[in-house]
Amino acid sequence: MTTDSNRVIIFDTTLRDGEQSPGASMNLEEKLRIAETLEEMGVDVIEAGFPIASEGDFESVSEIAKRAKNSSICGLSRASQGDIQRCFDAVKHAPIHRIHTFISTSPLHMKYKLQMEPDAVVEKIKSSVTFARSLVEDVEWSAEDGTRTDPDFLCRCVETAIAAGARTINIPDTVGYTVPEEYYKMIDMLMNRVPNIDQAIISTHCHNDLGLAVANSLSAVQAGARQVECTINGLGERAGNAALEEIVMALRTRKDFMPYETGIKSELITRASRMVSAITGFSVQPNKAIVGKNAFAHESGIHQDGMLKHAGTYEIMTPESVGLDNANKIVLGKHSGRHAFKDKLSALGYELGDNALNDAFKRFKDLADQKKDVYDDDIIALVDDEVMRVNERVKLTHFQVTCGTHVKSQIAALSLEIDGDERKTIAEGDGPVDAAFKAIKEIVPLPNAHLELYQVHAVTQGTDAQAEVTVRLEEEGKTVNGRGADTDTMVASVNAYLNAVNKLLVKREKGKPEDVGSI
Amino acid sequence: MTTDSNRVIIFDTTLRDGEQSPGASMNLEEKLRIAETLEEMGVDVIEAGFPIASEGDFESVSEIAKRAKNSSICGLSRASQGDIQRCFDAVKHAPIHRIHTFISTSPLHMKYKLQMEPDAVVEKIKSSVTFARSLVEDVEWSAEDGTRTDPDFLCRCVETAIAAGARTINIPDTVGYTVPEEYYKMIDMLMNRVPNIDQAIISTHCHNDLGLAVANSLSAVQAGARQVECTINGLGERAGNAALEEIVMALRTRKDFMPYETGIKSELITRASRMVSAITGFSVQPNKAIVGKNAFAHESGIHQDGMLKHAGTYEIMTPESVGLDNANKIVLGKHSGRHAFKDKLSALGYELGDNALNDAFKRFKDLADQKKDVYDDDIIALVDDEVMRVNERVKLTHFQVTCGTHVKSQIAALSLEIDGDERKTIAEGDGPVDAAFKAIKEIVPLPNAHLELYQVHAVTQGTDAQAEVTVRLEEEGKTVNGRGADTDTMVASVNAYLNAVNKLLVKREKGKPEDVGSI
Repeated sequence: MTTDSNRVIIFDTTLRDGEQSPGASMNLEEKLRIAETLEEMGVDVIEAGFPIASEGDFESVSEIAKRAKNSSICGLSRASQGDIQRCFDAVKHAPIHRIHTFISTSPLHMKYKLQMEPDAVVEKIKSSVTFARSLVEDVEWSAEDGTRTDPDFLCRCVETAIAAGARTINIPDTVGYTVPEEYYKMIDMLMNRVPNIDQAIISTHCHNDLGLAVANSLSAVQAGARQVECTINGLGERAGNAALEEIVMALRTRKDFMPYETGIKSELITRASRMVSAITGFSVQPNKAIVGKNAFAHESGIHQDGMLKHAGTYEIMTPESVGLDNANKIVLGKHSGRHAFKDKLSALGYELGDNALNDAFKRFKDLADQKKDVYDDDIIALVDDEVMRVNERVKLTHFQVTCGTHVKSQIAALSLEIDGDERKTIAEGDGPVDAAFKAIKEIVPLPNAHLELYQVHAVTQGTDAQAEVTVRLEEEGKTVNGRGADTDTMVASVNAYLNAVNKLLVKREKGKPEDVGSI
Repeated sequence: MTTDSNRVIIFDTTLRDGEQSPGASMNLEEKLRIAETLEEMGVDVIEAGFPIASEGDFESVSEIAKRAKNSSICGLSRASQGDIQRCFDAVKHAPIHRIHTFISTSPLHMKYKLQMEPDAVVEKIKSSVTFARSLVEDVEWSAEDGTRTDPDFLCRCVETAIAAGARTINIPDTVGYTVPEEYYKMIDMLMNRVPNIDQAIISTHCHNDLGLAVANSLSAVQAGARQVECTINGLGERAGNAALEEIVMALRTRKDFMPYETGIKSELITRASRMVSAITGFSVQPNKAIVGKNAFAHESGIHQDGMLKHAGTYEIMTPESVGLDNANKIVLGKHSGRHAFKDKLSALGYELGDNALNDAFKRFKDLADQKKDVYDDDIIALVDDEVMRVNERVKLTHFQVTCGTHVKSQIAALSLEIDGDERKTIAEGDGPVDAAFKAIKEIVPLPNAHLELYQVHAVTQGTDAQAEVTVRLEEEGKTVNGRGADTDTMVASVNAYLNAVNKLLVKREKGKPEDVGSI
C-alpha cells in the first residue's frame, strides 16, 4: 500500500462477500489456498471473512492472518463492540491488519432494518469507530446502502467516522443501484464537502445487479476514490461484486485515459479465476470478460486474417498478460518422470509433501495410460482431487452401476470405508446418479441433506477427457461443495458426492453461521 | 419503432454477432425459435444473420424474414455490391426490413486489414450506402473499430454515409476498448459536428472485453444515441456484446436518472435467456446480472430479515419483472392429464402438433413415474428433447454401459437406427462416455469430428433430477451443439451426441461458412 496519488488499493472480498453468495461456501483449507494466491497476486487488502458469523469464520480469518506476509488482513464487523472485538481477535495475528465496520445510512435501511433514528446512527458510527481504533491503527468504515443515502446525512456520517479515526471510508452500492455519472457525483461531493476528507481514502464497493459494477468503480476512482473492493470472477451476493480482473485490466489497458496504478500481478489472474470457480462450483461463462473461455478467442475469418496481419487489429490485451499463455498445452505423457511431474506442479502453484506427491504421481501415471495427452488442466484436476481426499473419514473402495435404455431402474453396488470400517450396500434409483447417491445415504445417514447442484464438465476436449463433477449439498442452512475428477463420469460423481459428505461431517461440528448481513 | 426523442430502439444481434462466437452456432429451427421469442419480446430490429457468409445463413435470414410481423429484420453485409444484394435477397421477405453494411475506419484497420487509403474508404462508404438505398429505404451503416477512429475522419465518414442515405449510424466499439466518458464524448462530438446528423439515428454496438459494454451503451444513449445493439445473455465474440437484459432493466430501474423508454416486454427476459443458453450450450454464470440463478437470491441473514420488513431494502427490481415468478414451481404430477399438460406447454411458449404432443405427453407420463415433482424446467427439457429428435436420420434404439471403479476399460453396447436400418456394435473406451461415443463412431463414420464441449447439469434440484447434457462437435470448421435430457446421465449423453451427429449430417450438405468478419 502506498499514498501515491495515482495508486489504487485493491481490496479483495472473495473470501467474505464472495463466500456469502448462496452456495459458494468454502472450507478452511480452500480459503487458505485462495488467500495464498491473492497475496501472491499482490492484493493490498484481503477481506478474509466475518469473524462473528461463526466459529468456522473466526478460525478461517485467524488462520489466514497467521500465514499472511505482505497483504493486510481485514475482517468485517457490525457496529457493536462484541463484533469488533471478535474481528480484532481474528485479524490481530497478521503483521498488517484492519478492522472493517459498517452500519446502514439510507432512510429505507435506517427505518426498516435498523429501526433507528439518524442521530442514533451517527452516535453509533462514532462509538464503533472509536472502539475499533482503540484496538488497531487501521480502521475502515462503510455506509451500508451508501448510494441511496441522503447526501447531507452521508457527509455528516463520513465526517464523523473520519473524526473518530477511520482511515478508509467505503461507500457501498449495496443493492447495485447506481450508475457511473451518479456515483461520480457522489464521490466528488464527498471530496469537496467533507472537511476532514484529506485524512482518509475513499473506497468503492459496487454490486453488479444492473451490470454496472466495474464502470461504477472506475468512475469513483476518476472522482478521487483510491480503493476498489472487488472479487475474483465477480463472485458475490445476487449478481455479485465488481470483478477484480476487469478492474485491473481496464486500468492497465486504458492507462492513457485513466492514469492509475494497481499492485496486481495480472499474470496470476487466470490461475486465481480457475481456482475460485473450481472451489465454489460457480462456473465462469464462456463470454465473461478477461477470464471466460472465449475472452481471447477470435472466431470470424476477417478477424483471424486481421490478427495475422497485425495483432492490434482485434486484440487490446495479450493472453499472456492474464497468464493464459501456458494453458491447454500438452505438458506430460506416459514417459514423463517424477522430476518433470514435480516441476510442473511447482509451476502450477502446488507444493505437495512426499506422500501426497507419491500418490499424485501414481494417479498421473494411471491417467497417462488412459489418456494420450495430459494437459495442465488434467494435472490440476488430478491434484485437486488428491489434495481433497487427504484425511477424509469416508472413502470409496468399490462402486459399480449399469446405465442404459430399457433399464427400468438402475442398481448401484457400492462399498465405503468409514473411519476404517468397510461397509457395503446395493441401492435402486431413478437413473445411475440417484442409485449411487441413495447407496451412499444408506451407509452414511443424511436425512436432511438436499442436493442443490450437480454439474459435470470435461476438463479438456476429446472423448477420453476427465469429467470434473461438482456436487452441492445443503443441510440445515449449511452448504458444502464437493468435487471429483475421473475419466468415468459416474465414479467422478460418486467421489464428488463423498467429498461433499466429508465436508458436511466436518461442518456439522462447527455449527451454523449466525445471521450477520453484509454490505 | 418511433421517432419519440426518448425512445431507444433495441437492436438484437444474438442471431448474428452472438452466433459468430466460437461454438455458438445454431441451426435453422433454433434460429426461428429465438427470432419468434425476440419478436414476442418487442425487439425493434432483429439482426438475423450475415447472408453472404453461407447458404445456411442466407436460408436462416430468409426464413426469419418470411415469418416476421412487427420486428424489422436486418442482415449484415460488407461494403461490396455482391454482399449487399445477397443481404437484400434474404431480408426482402419481411414486411419491415433493413440492410446493415459496414467498413473499417480506424487507422490500424484501414492499413492492415483493408489495405486502403482513407479517401478510398470514404468512396466505398458512399457507393455501398447508395447501392443499399437503391434496394431498400432503411439502411444502417457501421464504422468498424469506430472507437479507435480519428475524430475528424469519423465525422467525414458519418456525414458521407448519411448523405448517401443511411438512416442509422452505428459506432461500434469493435474491440471493447472504450470507457463511458470517452464514448460519451465521441457520440456528443458527432451530434455537434456532423452537419446532417439530424437525418439519422446514432447507434451503439459495444463489446465487453473490459466489462464495460453496458455502461458504454448507456453513456452513448445519454449523449444522444437512440439505438442500442445488444444480445441475449451478452452472447458474442470474445467477451461478448452488451447484454440486452442489462440494458433494458437498467433503463427501467433507473428511469429517474435516465428518462428513456424501450419497447421490450421485460417479463420475457428469463425465457429468452434460458432458450439461448440451452441452444448454444453457453452457460450463464450464477452471478450474471438479471438472468443468473443467484441474481434474485438473497443469502445473508440480515438481508433476509430486511427483505421481510421491506422488500425495497435489498431489492431494486422484482423477480416478476423479468418473468422469474413462475420458475421452479411444481406444476404437474403423475395424475396430471393431457389437457393440463397442453395448457402448460402453451404457457411456456410451445405449440406442438398432435403427433409431437402425443409423444411428449407419453414421455411426460414416464418422467412423472420416475420423478415425484415435475417442474417447468423439466417440461422444457423434455419437450426440447422431443422437438429436437423429430426427423433425425440417426436414432438410438438400445444402449447399455457399466461404470465403476476396478473397471479397467468400459464396454458400451449400442444399437442405432440409421435411415430405417438397425445397426449394432460394442466398443471399449476409457470411461463410459468414451466407450459410448466410440460405439457411435463405429456405426456413423466421423473421422474428422472433434469433441469440443461436454457438459452436464441437473435440470432441477434433487438426486432424481433429469440430467441435461450438451455436446459440441467440430468438423472441418463447422460446429454443432447437441443436447439430450434423461434421468440417466449416460443415456442423456448418448442422445446429446447423436443430436450433434444428426445436425452435422445436415450441415455437411450446406457447406462451410465463408470468412466474412464482423463489427
